[in-house]
Amino acid sequence: MKKCILIPDSFKGNIPAAEVCAIMQRAVQMHFPQAEICAVPAADGGEGTVDAFLQALGGQKVSLSVKGPFFEELPAFYGILPDRTAVIEMAAAAGLPQTGNRKCVEQATTFGVGQMLQHAIAQGCRKIILTLGGSATNDGGCGAAAAMGAVFQKADGTPFVPVGETLGQIAKIDLSALHKKTEGVQICAMCDVTNPLCGKNGAAAVFAPQKGANAEVVGLLDRGLHHLAEVLQRDCKVDILSLPGAGAAGGMGGGMVAFFGSPLQSGIETFLDTIRFDELLHGTDLVFTGEGKLDSQSLGGKVISGVARRTKRAGIPLIAVVGDIEGTTAQAYDAGVSAVFSINRTAVPFRLAKQRSRADLFLTMDNLMRFLKRFAPQF
Amino acid sequence: MKKCILIPDSFKGNIPAAEVCAIMQRAVQMHFPQAEICAVPAADGGEGTVDAFLQALGGQKVSLSVKGPFFEELPAFYGILPDRTAVIEMAAAAGLPQTGNRKCVEQATTFGVGQMLQHAIAQGCRKIILTLGGSATNDGGCGAAAAMGAVFQKADGTPFVPVGETLGQIAKIDLSALHKKTEGVQICAMCDVTNPLCGKNGAAAVFAPQKGANAEVVGLLDRGLHHLAEVLQRDCKVDILSLPGAGAAGGMGGGMVAFFGSPLQSGIETFLDTIRFDELLHGTDLVFTGEGKLDSQSLGGKVISGVARRTKRAGIPLIAVVGDIEGTTAQAYDAGVSAVFSINRTAVPFRLAKQRSRADLFLTMDNLMRFLKRFAPQF
Repeated sequence: MKKCILIPDSFKGNIPAAEVCAIMQRAVQMHFPQAEICAVPAADGGEGTVDAFLQALGGQKVSLSVKGPFFEELPAFYGILPDRTAVIEMAAAAGLPQTGNRKCVEQATTFGVGQMLQHAIAQGCRKIILTLGGSATNDGGCGAAAAMGAVFQKADGTPFVPVGETLGQIAKIDLSALHKKTEGVQICAMCDVTNPLCGKNGAAAVFAPQKGANAEVVGLLDRGLHHLAEVLQRDCKVDILSLPGAGAAGGMGGGMVAFFGSPLQSGIETFLDTIRFDELLHGTDLVFTGEGKLDSQSLGGKVISGVARRTKRAGIPLIAVVGDIEGTTAQAYDAGVSAVFSINRTAVPFRLAKQRSRADLFLTMDNLMRFLKRFAPQF
Repeated sequence: MKKCILIPDSFKGNIPAAEVCAIMQRAVQMHFPQAEICAVPAADGGEGTVDAFLQALGGQKVSLSVKGPFFEELPAFYGILPDRTAVIEMAAAAGLPQTGNRKCVEQATTFGVGQMLQHAIAQGCRKIILTLGGSATNDGGCGAAAAMGAVFQKADGTPFVPVGETLGQIAKIDLSALHKKTEGVQICAMCDVTNPLCGKNGAAAVFAPQKGANAEVVGLLDRGLHHLAEVLQRDCKVDILSLPGAGAAGGMGGGMVAFFGSPLQSGIETFLDTIRFDELLHGTDLVFTGEGKLDSQSLGGKVISGVARRTKRAGIPLIAVVGDIEGTTAQAYDAGVSAVFSINRTAVPFRLAKQRSRADLFLTMDNLMRFLKRFAPQF
């Protein structure tokens, strides 16, 4: 084997992707000491995405202070890659973990996200990647827009920063200052949900309950987002009501499109494009991917299916090593995964399996390497 | 792939070996429809050994009535292979299941086993394979010997059929009639234990408690076996006191050697010799084996290690597909197993895993076939 790529997701709640990489690498090296090994912890937009980008490409982690979900000061971070692309996790400023026990989605803001955008632009970043996962907010991105210069006015002309519960009070939106700040800057959002802004599959109905909203609040938020969409249509000539993904992250999906002209992109595709995965594949004999659980969801926009699409196109074999396999793996084979192996070696409940998962992962990789050496003389 | 051998043990308490074979065969055929597949459920001397021999080689199953463990009439069976080798499971006449709730090892006899030997000889069998597993007895094989013509006398000259509790009353043993009956007949015993006849690792101390003996009875049985060995030494010039394996099946191991001149042979080796496994390996590309659990015991005389010894010598790759893998598989690799795969796909307790084990076995085999097709172009 001359070259091997390891590009696993994390085994969620169990082994971080970087550690999965390290364990896989140890097994490959043991049996193929001459092989070039590219170890790339993958990210699809969830927590750890900035770290994954930095590990894959190098760059710096920037620390700063921004407004948190309830306008309090909050230490946050983002990454700047060597080509000065910024990678920002929305959740770093407006995430559920930042709210502590105060789940009050109708008052939460994305203002800090806008501050991070502004900071990155001030650092000379002309391309920004923003992940939309894990938000605590439902403000349609108005907070972020306000931080970047958008002016929201009430009916009496008073400027204000709308939050979920005050979206209905927006009478007028002026984006001219914001547009000036974002001129020449490309901002794209990593977004793997297709929920619309409003309605029964909308941001409020689907995601607000887990952010603390009861039925009454859900109704208020849904009406607020609907009103925001109408004003945006009128003042900014953008329709986000019918846009798939507009409902992501409390309407941040719609806000990114309306305020920043951002495309909503598949998380893993954005990651693979950014790390130039297709170029990395040149001369590669074999790719390993993996994640905590392979199920139907894994094959709809996540790491394994994203990697498989490209290895299949390149004709390079792909092995998935995963925690659990739910159901059959027919979909994975169709997607281009050559074979799928679970690390489970004994019939024990997850509580016990979890404790030995690192050892089991190594032993599974060790076994696969032996298999390859015995049966695949081309390696 | 031109030729493939499937030679799994049963997944004990879960999937019989014949069914493991059938499931494996379905997966191999699906991906390699042209391949010649030899499906051989393996047997190492446990329950089902007669069926395994008959499935591998053909032949007939013989039904007969013999004396059971407590001298009651009992329907029993044995097998006659096409070359007129008889295969007899000791447990069919003197097994624990035949005792019902009456666990009374000190009164149990192997008489019926001798009747089966006699029946087979009367059918013209000149070679007999006897398995020693699962016995309910501790009579040192005296019952079987008596049924075959051995004469045991008490001190006053009374002939009797000794059982465990009366072994101490044996004053004289005459094997002349027995030797006449067994002239020209080769009887060998499948035996994978190495326990001595007597002492703390002997038949009574180690195996009698699970056959219903308390400490007092264990002492009685142990002294009885010791006495038997002394009389055998004096009257028949055979020493079974120091013989490894003499303690198998309540001293039946020692009895087979002393009364019938039987070698005590490894179960799986006997099976593999009889089915001419080495010849079967000619032209074979790949062998699959398996069992319910791979642990250190599996690699000390059982199916996987026995098969591995021969495939290794022949330079043919061997894949083990098992239920659980306990510990590492270093020993299996050393023994010549190319790779080991567990059928476990999700972290669930055995109670649940058991219910889906047939489906999981098929899916694991399906995945391996895909893996081979993708990576082993020589197939």
